[in-house]
Amino acid sequence: MKQPIFIVLAEGKLGIETSKTAVSSVRYLADRVAALIDSEHSGRTAQEVLGVGGGIPIVASLAQALRVSEPAPQALLVGVANRGGTIPPEHRPVLFEAVEAGLDIWCGLHERLADDGQLAARALERGVRLVDLREPPADLPVGTGLALQTAGFRVLTVGTDCNVGKMTASLETRRALTERGVKARFAGTGQSGIIVDGAGIPVDAVVSDFVSGATERITLEAAEGADVVLVEGQGSLFHPGYSAVTLGLLHGALPNAMILCWMPGRTRIYAGGYDWLEIPSPARAIEAYEEAMRWAAPQLDSRVIALSANTYDLAEDEARRFIEEAGRVTGLPSTDPVRFGAEPLAEAVEEARRAAD
Amino acid sequence: MKQPIFIVLAEGKLGIETSKTAVSSVRYLADRVAALIDSEHSGRTAQEVLGVGGGIPIVASLAQALRVSEPAPQALLVGVANRGGTIPPEHRPVLFEAVEAGLDIWCGLHERLADDGQLAARALERGVRLVDLREPPADLPVGTGLALQTAGFRVLTVGTDCNVGKMTASLETRRALTERGVKARFAGTGQSGIIVDGAGIPVDAVVSDFVSGATERITLEAAEGADVVLVEGQGSLFHPGYSAVTLGLLHGALPNAMILCWMPGRTRIYAGGYDWLEIPSPARAIEAYEEAMRWAAPQLDSRVIALSANTYDLAEDEARRFIEEAGRVTGLPSTDPVRFGAEPLAEAVEEARRAAD
Repeated sequence: MKQPIFIVLAEGKLGIETSKTAVSSVRYLADRVAALIDSEHSGRTAQEVLGVGGGIPIVASLAQALRVSEPAPQALLVGVANRGGTIPPEHRPVLFEAVEAGLDIWCGLHERLADDGQLAARALERGVRLVDLREPPADLPVGTGLALQTAGFRVLTVGTDCNVGKMTASLETRRALTERGVKARFAGTGQSGIIVDGAGIPVDAVVSDFVSGATERITLEAAEGADVVLVEGQGSLFHPGYSAVTLGLLHGALPNAMILCWMPGRTRIYAGGYDWLEIPSPARAIEAYEEAMRWAAPQLDSRVIALSANTYDLAEDEARRFIEEAGRVTGLPSTDPVRFGAEPLAEAVEEARRAAD
Repeated sequence: MKQPIFIVLAEGKLGIETSKTAVSSVRYLADRVAALIDSEHSGRTAQEVLGVGGGIPIVASLAQALRVSEPAPQALLVGVANRGGTIPPEHRPVLFEAVEAGLDIWCGLHERLADDGQLAARALERGVRLVDLREPPADLPVGTGLALQTAGFRVLTVGTDCNVGKMTASLETRRALTERGVKARFAGTGQSGIIVDGAGIPVDAVVSDFVSGATERITLEAAEGADVVLVEGQGSLFHPGYSAVTLGLLHGALPNAMILCWMPGRTRIYAGGYDWLEIPSPARAIEAYEEAMRWAAPQLDSRVIALSANTYDLAEDEARRFIEEAGRVTGLPSTDPVRFGAEPLAEAVEEARRAAD
C-alpha cells in the first residue's frame, strides 16, 4: 500500500498526545504530508507546534489547505481519534468538501466512512476512494502460537499506559537496527502504524476471539526474511478499557523480549474516567508483563530488556533525571528514543539476540 | 427472550466437553428440549449419555426428531461449537431441512446464519426466524469501570483453561444462593449462557476495544436490584487463543470476588495446538487472576474465594481426592457443584459479602 500525498485533518486537536495519527504521519511520512488542518494553530508550522515536521504548514480549513498544498494533495487523512472511535460530527462537512475536491479519504477510526450512505454515494459519483484502515481481514483464525516458529527475534513494545509511545519506540528501534545493518521489520497493529508502514492489521478492531490470531498473522508476515520483528504494542495491561487488546497482542506475538514504554510526566491513566487508578512505575509494569508472558509461554522466559520514555512534555534536565533514575532502579538500558536516540534500545535487542543464540 | 421448544443438533459431538451448548440446554432448559440429534448415540437418552436430561431422546436425524418430539418443536438449536466458530458444512443440509419443516434456527457460532444468502432467502419464504445469538449490540462503549458502582456483590467465574465449567459454576451458585433467599442474578457472556438465561452479550464476538465495555454493561444490567451478580467467565488467562477475552471480562466486571473453575482430569490446554503449555495448578491460577485484578482495581483486593471442579470424567473417590487436596493446598472451599452440590460456593460468596460490608 503506497501512501498518497495527504492533507491531515486535526482540527482542535493538534498535539503530541491528542492527535497521534497526525503526529506520526508528520514524523514518519513528512514528504507525504502537504498540510495540517487545525485552526487553533493556523499560520504556524508543524515544527513549531509539534517539534517535528519542518515547514509543513498548519492551516485553518480544507479550502486553505488545498490552496497552499505543494505537491498537490491526493487524500484527506482523518488525523484525530476519540475514545470509542466515532467520527466527530463537526468533521462530516469537511469530509464532503474533500470528496467534492476530488480527494480520497483515509480514516482509521472504528466508525467506517463506508457506513455513511450519503458520503459513500457522493464518493462513488466523484470517483474517489474511502479507505477505512480499521477494517480487519474477515478470515482471521484463533491464535495457536504460530509466532513461536519465526526465525527472527520477536520484540514487542508494551506500556505503562495507552498512548505513551509504543509505535514510536518500535519504529525508532527499527531505524537504529537498520542503521546497524540488521534486517529489522515492523509489524503494525494500529491505525497510525498501518498508515506509516503501509501494512498491518488494526488488532483493536478485531473480534476479541481473534486478537491473538490476528497478531500471530502479522508477526509471521513481518518476520519473513527478517532478523528482528518489532511488533507494535497496543494499550496497557493496566488500562481497564484496553487491557484485552494488550494481552491478546502479548499472547499472539509471543515476544522473545519486550521494550517497556512509559511517560514519566503522566500520573493518571490516559483518557479519563479511571479515578481510582495510578499509572504503575516501570518496575511494577515489568513485573506484570513478564508474569503475563509466563502464562502463555513460560519456556521463552520473555523479559523486558529496555525502557523507552516519552518526555516531550518535560524540560531536558528533568527528562534525563527520570530516564536515568528508571534505568538505575530497573537495571535496564533507558532512553527517550525521539529526544536522545534509540541506540540503547537497538543495543538491548542485539544483546538479547546474542544471549538467546 | 423466551426460549422455544428446541431440537438440538449435536451430530457426532454429543458429550460433556464436545457440545457445551447442547449439554447446557439439556441441563438448564430440560423442559424446552424435545430431542437431541447425534447418530452415534441414537436410541439412547440424554441421561444415559450425558448423566443429565432424563428421558430426552437422542435420534439420528432431523426427520426422526420431528417424529418423536413431544411437545412439538419450534426451533433447531445448533448445539456444537468448533474453534473459530464456523458452521460445519455437513450441518448445512440439516439447516435447510429445518427451515422446510417450519422451524426457527438458533445458532451461537461466530459465523452468522443470516450471512448464508440462500438460507436467509428460504427462511424468509417459509416465515421462520434465523436467530444469531453471537451478534453483539452495535453501540458498545469502551469500558470505564462503571461496574464498580453496582450495589450488588460481583462474583466472576475464572478458569485454569477454557471449557472447564465456568458457566455451570455461575448457574449452580446462583441456584444455591437463591435457595438461601439471596437475590442472585446471572450475567451471561457466551452463547450457552445466553441461551440458558435468555439474556446477555457474547463478549467473545465483540470487537476487542469494547470487551470490557460490553462486560460492564451486562454486569450493570444484571446487577439491578440484585444482592449478588454472578458474571459468567470466558476462556482463561493461560489460554493463548482466548486470554484477551478473559482479561477484558476481568477488567469490565471488576469482580469483588472470583470462583476458580478447573478440571482435575485434564492436563493439556483445551482445543489443541499448544504443545508447550501445561494447565496451571489451582494455586498458580489463583496467583495470576489476583495479580490481573490488581492491575485494574487494586483497591478491591479481589480474591479467589472458592474452587469449582469439573470431575465428570473421574471416578467418585478420585474426584473427592482431587477436590479435597486442592482445598487443602489453597485453603479454600472446594467442590464439584454438579456432582457434590454448590453449597460451598454459595457459602463462600456469603462469607465474602459479609467480610466486605
